[in-house]
Amino acid sequence: MTTLTKSHMVVAQNASGRSMNVPVYRLKGNIPGPTIYIQSSIHGAEVQGNVVIYHLIQALQKQVIAGEIILVPNCNPVGTNIKAGEYTLGRFDPVNGTNWNRGYFFDAEKVKDFADTVQPEDNIDEIRQQFRAYWAACIEEKLASPWGLGLAQQLNLKLQRLAVSADAVLDLHNGPVSTRHIYIPEFAKNAARLFNFPHCIFIPNVFAGALDEATFCPWWTLQEHLESRFGRPYHFDVVGFTLEMGSQEVIKFSEGEIDAASILCYLAAKGCLPEGSHQPKEMTRIGVDLSDYKTLYTDWGGMVEYCAKPGEKVKKGQVMARVLNIDELDNEAGSFDITAPCDLIPMLHFPSASVLSGTQLYKVFTQYTEI
Amino acid sequence: MTTLTKSHMVVAQNASGRSMNVPVYRLKGNIPGPTIYIQSSIHGAEVQGNVVIYHLIQALQKQVIAGEIILVPNCNPVGTNIKAGEYTLGRFDPVNGTNWNRGYFFDAEKVKDFADTVQPEDNIDEIRQQFRAYWAACIEEKLASPWGLGLAQQLNLKLQRLAVSADAVLDLHNGPVSTRHIYIPEFAKNAARLFNFPHCIFIPNVFAGALDEATFCPWWTLQEHLESRFGRPYHFDVVGFTLEMGSQEVIKFSEGEIDAASILCYLAAKGCLPEGSHQPKEMTRIGVDLSDYKTLYTDWGGMVEYCAKPGEKVKKGQVMARVLNIDELDNEAGSFDITAPCDLIPMLHFPSASVLSGTQLYKVFTQYTEI
Amino acid sequence: MTTLTKSHMVVAQNASGRSMNVPVYRLKGNIPGPTIYIQSSIHGAEVQGNVVIYHLIQALQKQVIAGEIILVPNCNPVGTNIKAGEYTLGRFDPVNGTNWNRGYFFDAEKVKDFADTVQPEDNIDEIRQQFRAYWAACIEEKLASPWGLGLAQQLNLKLQRLAVSADAVLDLHNGPVSTRHIYIPEFAKNAARLFNFPHCIFIPNVFAGALDEATFCPWWTLQEHLESRFGRPYHFDVVGFTLEMGSQEVIKFSEGEIDAASILCYLAAKGCLPEGSHQPKEMTRIGVDLSDYKTLYTDWGGMVEYCAKPGEKVKKGQVMARVLNIDELDNEAGSFDITAPCDLIPMLHFPSASVLSGTQLYKVFTQYTEI
Amino acid sequence: MTTLTKSHMVVAQNASGRSMNVPVYRLKGNIPGPTIYIQSSIHGAEVQGNVVIYHLIQALQKQVIAGEIILVPNCNPVGTNIKAGEYTLGRFDPVNGTNWNRGYFFDAEKVKDFADTVQPEDNIDEIRQQFRAYWAACIEEKLASPWGLGLAQQLNLKLQRLAVSADAVLDLHNGPVSTRHIYIPEFAKNAARLFNFPHCIFIPNVFAGALDEATFCPWWTLQEHLESRFGRPYHFDVVGFTLEMGSQEVIKFSEGEIDAASILCYLAAKGCLPEGSHQPKEMTRIGVDLSDYKTLYTDWGGMVEYCAKPGEKVKKGQVMARVLNIDELDNEAGSFDITAPCDLIPMLHFPSASVLSGTQLYKVFTQYTEI
Repeated sequence: MTTLTKSHMVVAQNASGRSMNVPVYRLKGNIPGPTIYIQSSIHGAEVQGNVVIYHLIQALQKQVIAGEIILVPNCNPVGTNIKAGEYTLGRFDPVNGTNWNRGYFFDAEKVKDFADTVQPEDNIDEIRQQFRAYWAACIEEKLASPWGLGLAQQLNLKLQRLAVSADAVLDLHNGPVSTRHIYIPEFAKNAARLFNFPHCIFIPNVFAGALDEATFCPWWTLQEHLESRFGRPYHFDVVGFTLEMGSQEVIKFSEGEIDAASILCYLAAKGCLPEGSHQPKEMTRIGVDLSDYKTLYTDWGGMVEYCAKPGEKVKKGQVMARVLNIDELDNEAGSFDITAPCDLIPMLHFPSASVLSGTQLYKVFTQYTEI
Repeated sequence: MTTLTKSHMVVAQNASGRSMNVPVYRLKGNIPGPTIYIQSSIHGAEVQGNVVIYHLIQALQKQVIAGEIILVPNCNPVGTNIKAGEYTLGRFDPVNGTNWNRGYFFDAEKVKDFADTVQPEDNIDEIRQQFRAYWAACIEEKLASPWGLGLAQQLNLKLQRLAVSADAVLDLHNGPVSTRHIYIPEFAKNAARLFNFPHCIFIPNVFAGALDEATFCPWWTLQEHLESRFGRPYHFDVVGFTLEMGSQEVIKFSEGEIDAASILCYLAAKGCLPEGSHQPKEMTRIGVDLSDYKTLYTDWGGMVEYCAKPGEKVKKGQVMARVLNIDELDNEAGSFDITAPCDLIPMLHFPSASVLSGTQLYKVFTQYTEI
Repeated sequence: MTTLTKSHMVVAQNASGRSMNVPVYRLKGNIPGPTIYIQSSIHGAEVQGNVVIYHLIQALQKQVIAGEIILVPNCNPVGTNIKAGEYTLGRFDPVNGTNWNRGYFFDAEKVKDFADTVQPEDNIDEIRQQFRAYWAACIEEKLASPWGLGLAQQLNLKLQRLAVSADAVLDLHNGPVSTRHIYIPEFAKNAARLFNFPHCIFIPNVFAGALDEATFCPWWTLQEHLESRFGRPYHFDVVGFTLEMGSQEVIKFSEGEIDAASILCYLAAKGCLPEGSHQPKEMTRIGVDLSDYKTLYTDWGGMVEYCAKPGEKVKKGQVMARVLNIDELDNEAGSFDITAPCDLIPMLHFPSASVLSGTQLYKVFTQYTEI
Repeated sequence: MTTLTKSHMVVAQNASGRSMNVPVYRLKGNIPGPTIYIQSSIHGAEVQGNVVIYHLIQALQKQVIAGEIILVPNCNPVGTNIKAGEYTLGRFDPVNGTNWNRGYFFDAEKVKDFADTVQPEDNIDEIRQQFRAYWAACIEEKLASPWGLGLAQQLNLKLQRLAVSADAVLDLHNGPVSTRHIYIPEFAKNAARLFNFPHCIFIPNVFAGALDEATFCPWWTLQEHLESRFGRPYHFDVVGFTLEMGSQEVIKFSEGEIDAASILCYLAAKGCLPEGSHQPKEMTRIGVDLSDYKTLYTDWGGMVEYCAKPGEKVKKGQVMARVLNIDELDNEAGSFDITAPCDLIPMLHFPSASVLSGTQLYKVFTQYTEI
């Protein structure tokens, strides 16, 4: 039998002195199995993941579950509720510009300290269990910093505390104007076939502050230490993914069902759904290394039509954007074209026609391959 | 022969002490004819009008023009350049919230003062000419207020000073997520057939601060005074329109051609294009009185899918929006529907899925008729 | 015996679907007496009134009260919690620019409708009671608008519904960088001596959307109708004040005691504190008509030192501000002075050194007199 | 003879397609001497440095100069001109939250590459000259990144390109509500006595993105490589400082003279002013290591009075702040105190009374010593 419990976790307090909390849904089965952690909307304008979690909870309640699935929708109640004009200023703390998705905990030194205590004869399940407890304690210690922590970091660490018990972490995001793509750690490349995502980015063991990295970097680093010390393979298989499921500022219930189905496939593959028959779709999947995932910045300011659409292949030299120059509307300099510097596939583009110089116009796959 | 002149008008100065100016394009023919004033982007995120003006200038340069056409694209360089997150905070002055489109000049008392000086024998062309000079002087006097004026009002009056010589004023706007619609003064209802706009809103002689009203209210009011004093009709035929051409934050060159073509039809009908053969399209046009153009506000906060699309007819009781409730994802209160309170056609909806209570969810035509 | 009750009133719902409420404190005595309504922070950055209410509640709990005192601190939980950088974006709704202090209800026609039903023999207490009930119903009707209302208006009306029972309403505000001043309706000029405010602005019977006006305009208008109909004086004596108690973004507990003492004097004078011995201070009070309360706007942009201090008399020609011009630092145009156009007393100035053209640099008393 | 030249450097283009530039003032003497680079307002709200540069230029024009002094006031025209409410949103790019002071260039690997080419017999002036050219080329290469760069980084690199020729770089900043303090690299500790700054923070050879670090880290790193390779001392003596000169959003011409005088002392000490007699003040100077410069974060939200003043010594246990709790105004929980966790001196505090949890309430010196 599957039991659902719902609680609320306080993650911040506002200037009126009121606590701001997030809902935490836990679905647990009688059968042992992995722990999966899924959150959405750490960037406040990226709301579609909330719908995906809605569909997941609706579906999972009716299923036999092995292990536990923890779901935290709308996990950033501050970011979701900052409006600036009609849009949501959800990417960073409006006080200081801190990206809401860069304050998770990782410390390579602390992994090394632990690795040094492991004995060659220790079995992998023991190591896993001990490291998890150790890492949880590290997060607690960070949270208890004597001089305190910034808001984004407090929020991140409280969420990470929930996620630390998980074998897989799914962080649900959206791009500005975007097509579906997913970030997958290189060591787990095969997971690309377990989701229904047409575009996959493979990322190395480098920590830049996000939850997926904060999830796998400690284990990956531990594994490398142990393999180097003891000269044999270790597989902890703790993994984190960032799923980009279309455009920010938009909710679509029907699209959410597609992504929920995709995640159910992954859960089934991980053994969470012993009675489920979820199979990932036969589809073309395209992959790039993170170093081939490029950002095209502007070196001009102006007003832009985005001609190249996210998800559509663009050949070198093809027009990607057309720019209006309001001071030259009477002559041929009134508009000019931006062309593709190489073959590429746009994943996303800037959501406003008005851009300053130095704007991230497009993010694109280059040197991509079918996988 | 058509001559084009381009100049720049300073409308503001920034905190670095630098002047901010707007381009003013003037197309003039040898043949006498009406003066038409067209501006775009007074709301900084509503940029599509700039493309329309681009297409107009490109087309008009090749045509014989009777009279003069004055075009001011990107007429609000402050509003266009305030970013808040990736979007443009273009609707109001970020310092004080003043709507950039509410500070034009109108003063019913001053119209009456002028009307009192008119003699029954004065001919209408003389009256027109004298009133225009009088009204221009009123605007100058306002601009020269001894204690100064707010930024939005300064900007508005400097633009209105350009527009005061015009027989018709076209103010190019966009809605948030929107379909094409146009505001037409009731007395000029027939103009609805001269544009290719499927949706028309007829507005009364009431001044609420916008440029179209600031254009026609003085003349309409003058007309009413004179008709009441002298018991016979006066037609000054000075008119202003607000054209809403789709969604903000978006530029589409091809859509701009459609609207430019629509405006060329109007210019032809006004006699500006003696050699042109522009004919408005045969199409269904739907009209409402302003009092039947309703705003549907939320009395809840949540995350919304906009099911009803701008421009599509909705029957009473049909689902317009579906709302997600992140605290009840495990039960049937996890989502709920907003239905249409009567038959209606949405013109626009809020551009973000995240809404607080008291948000303008939709603006809709009710009690509409074909015209 | 004085009883204190505390409740919470929901005034909005955020995008996470969470209700936002305000605390309502009611202090009530056994003895009959007037009802007084006091709120603070309708503009979210103007927080000092919350401290004043703190001191008032602390003091009033120990006193015998005649009638009832209703206190609503932090009455705008939306505005208080919108940060833009380190400051509070508290003056207007960040979605649409609507000033949080302009959506209260008044309708001169509805006053007239009521006035027409009054009979010459009706006694004033009956009229007062009936009009209060009538007006409360008007506010309810407005709140129940079938298509809904904007957020600021919903908030305003819910507060006004609490305030409608009051004989006096005190709306606690702050200026940007400001000295103490108070807005008093002309008909209640004498109240100037009941508070310890050195600067008083006398305002006419004109509604511009604020709570003080929304409080007294209906009664003042009713009074004028009845006096004109029946040719004799009517005194309803329902009054509203806006108290500006220094600078926004600042809390000072000791300054709050000064303003609390000032308000206690007023409460005593109104008969709310039968055992109190609060006496307003002997002090110089300066008054102006609202038409002599001027705003000095800039017609330049630049960086400014505010030389004239709020509350200090400035003679015509004296330097008020010194402006830096970053492009001319090597010559005498590197800075220039702004001088007073007449004798004046600044009440407040803009809180940032960086100003665009069209900025409210100072608001000043001109033509002021001792009262 | 001292010659002044003034030019303008384009650093960005806005959405209207207009170039935004910064003024560059160069004061040059006939006599050889060091090059000094001084900029102000990279954080747009920190404007007082512009006044300091004004006073410097006014003073330096009349003096004999050895070498060259380059001054760039208002060096961030984007940040200075983003208003959000009445304040300046000047700390980060409003599009993406990027701090305007974190995108300068440093690459330890590239320093090492250069160090490896140095020969033991190379003389230090040659090394200095070659490394400067090499480093300038590295910056150019970065600026020419084939896919472009973000706006903040473009701005930073264009400024750094000007600064790369300097022997000393002074970056003029302000704190939120702040007292004077200065960041000094540890290796140049003695420079503390050359300025009139009462509070000094000594920073290690760690790059975190700011201009002072970007100035000295390459040279410091080069020095360490060479000393380690060749076993003898190298002194390049290229140094960068961040000067925090009081509070943001404020301009004071008289305070600017104090800081200009302080900087003139430093210039004299560096040999730029051969005929000057500028002597630093006899004064108490207090220093801390960067690791003892602590940030006190809140773990609550509320409204705050800042009791401890920047620059004043606070003993352990002393009240630093008093917090109002609007839901408990009727009891003793209505306010509570924040006390100092150890002896400290606040340098700055948050500029708004309204704080969320996770706010930087104070930044303070701990473990400080007189120097």
